[in-house]
Amino acid sequence: MPMEHEDEGARALASVLRRLNVQRIDTLRFTAEAEGPGRPRLFGGMVAGQAAIAAARTCAGFRMHSLHAYFLLPGDPALAVDYEVSPLKHGKNFQACQVIGRQADRTIFSLQASFQRDGEGFAHTDAPPEAPPPETLPDISLPYWGGVGPIQLRDCDGGDLARAAVRGQRLIWMRASAPVPDDPELQLGLLVFASDMQLVRTGILQHPEFHVRRFGASLDHALWFHQPPRFDGWILQTMTSPVAQQGRPLIFGTMYRDGARILSSAQEGVFKPSPAAT
Amino acid sequence: MPMEHEDEGARALASVLRRLNVQRIDTLRFTAEAEGPGRPRLFGGMVAGQAAIAAARTCAGFRMHSLHAYFLLPGDPALAVDYEVSPLKHGKNFQACQVIGRQADRTIFSLQASFQRDGEGFAHTDAPPEAPPPETLPDISLPYWGGVGPIQLRDCDGGDLARAAVRGQRLIWMRASAPVPDDPELQLGLLVFASDMQLVRTGILQHPEFHVRRFGASLDHALWFHQPPRFDGWILQTMTSPVAQQGRPLIFGTMYRDGARILSSAQEGVFKPSPAAT
Repeated sequence: MPMEHEDEGARALASVLRRLNVQRIDTLRFTAEAEGPGRPRLFGGMVAGQAAIAAARTCAGFRMHSLHAYFLLPGDPALAVDYEVSPLKHGKNFQACQVIGRQADRTIFSLQASFQRDGEGFAHTDAPPEAPPPETLPDISLPYWGGVGPIQLRDCDGGDLARAAVRGQRLIWMRASAPVPDDPELQLGLLVFASDMQLVRTGILQHPEFHVRRFGASLDHALWFHQPPRFDGWILQTMTSPVAQQGRPLIFGTMYRDGARILSSAQEGVFKPSPAAT
Repeated sequence: MPMEHEDEGARALASVLRRLNVQRIDTLRFTAEAEGPGRPRLFGGMVAGQAAIAAARTCAGFRMHSLHAYFLLPGDPALAVDYEVSPLKHGKNFQACQVIGRQADRTIFSLQASFQRDGEGFAHTDAPPEAPPPETLPDISLPYWGGVGPIQLRDCDGGDLARAAVRGQRLIWMRASAPVPDDPELQLGLLVFASDMQLVRTGILQHPEFHVRRFGASLDHALWFHQPPRFDGWILQTMTSPVAQQGRPLIFGTMYRDGARILSSAQEGVFKPSPAAT
């Protein structure tokens, strides 16, 4: 990557991390900058990442192992988002809480998350699919983010959804555009942010007449963490949509690092009929 | 099935439907009988089904397309459960709400659900795997429910987890033990109930030294409905656990009816170390 792109990527990442880093107002209330004006709507992964960090800050000593969220209303990128945490469980080994995200009097987001103390237990993992190494692939992050992005994306099909459709699966390598601070909460937030970047467009792999930017939205987002949540090194994300009904495709994602599954994701999207279809 | 078993199955089903049928106390509050004393704990699928029906009763004119729930504390089967619904979204095409389940001052369960109006949109579905027809398979519901159960279960591996482990997937046919009333909310509730019956034990397919009844519990439950939620006819459920960490297996399930996917599910379980392992 040329030097000016490296700098631009580092700046984009720093901007994302600054916004993810929610400010604590009191024990259970947090606030965060949104993304600033100039975007059509607030990116769901930003809201989910901010809410995940807010949740994590109320569950010190425990590690998030799953979250389940609904995107309720489009966020306004020019307004701050306020997060209010409600504890759901205070156990010895598990904690759980809910986070509601609001802009003024609009409830835009609701997340539930569960946390576990470190401990022993059995483990197994499937293996990642065959994929060309990320160094051999061109970066597709530029068109997506309107500039060099905070996250490098290397699509094993070169961004060609038709090729991915033949495979029935999208394969994308992801990596932060610059080193991420060794802060567990920022690492968690960035992983959540990144997990929402490519899922919904996977829902139209079999429906190329649709356009994700104009007609698509995410309804929900579920994540399960199989390692301490960190966004470091090259991560291979696989995505597939086995089923859709009434314009609602369901997408399953995975992330692998060093051959082990580190994250599983599920998201339902919704698409309005395209002009061509009506 | 011999006649006395048919009667016993119909009685078991009627008992489940009676308990699923939550009573409305006021606009957003419901209560339900639990399962009665004599069980070690309240079955999670019963709580999830009751909460789903409570949610549906507050969203008339819309159809549930997904839910995301956490099992927070073991329920007491001898106590009634109170459900309180909080609306999260009142849109033109979508509604969403949360349901908290309580016994006395214990919050045992939290569910979020989303509802959509009927409408147009694209669809796709994968195909079910090859499976022997249910009529050729023995029923395994008896040992599970301590009598003829409300739901007939026909395991394509005869209940042998070792055989399913070789396949990497469990395949179980399910059907109500008697006709279910043509009531959309009871149909929804029974489908949710049934969806939780077999998932968590799938998590130990690769760990036969564990025992689901003594050491296993469900942490969460997510469902996506790809058809109007109904539990009628023979339904093929597939279940697989691609990953586990720290005793927490993640299980994905599907249900197919007449060759089309009608439901997708995801559940994380948790297992304490078995005595043999410590």
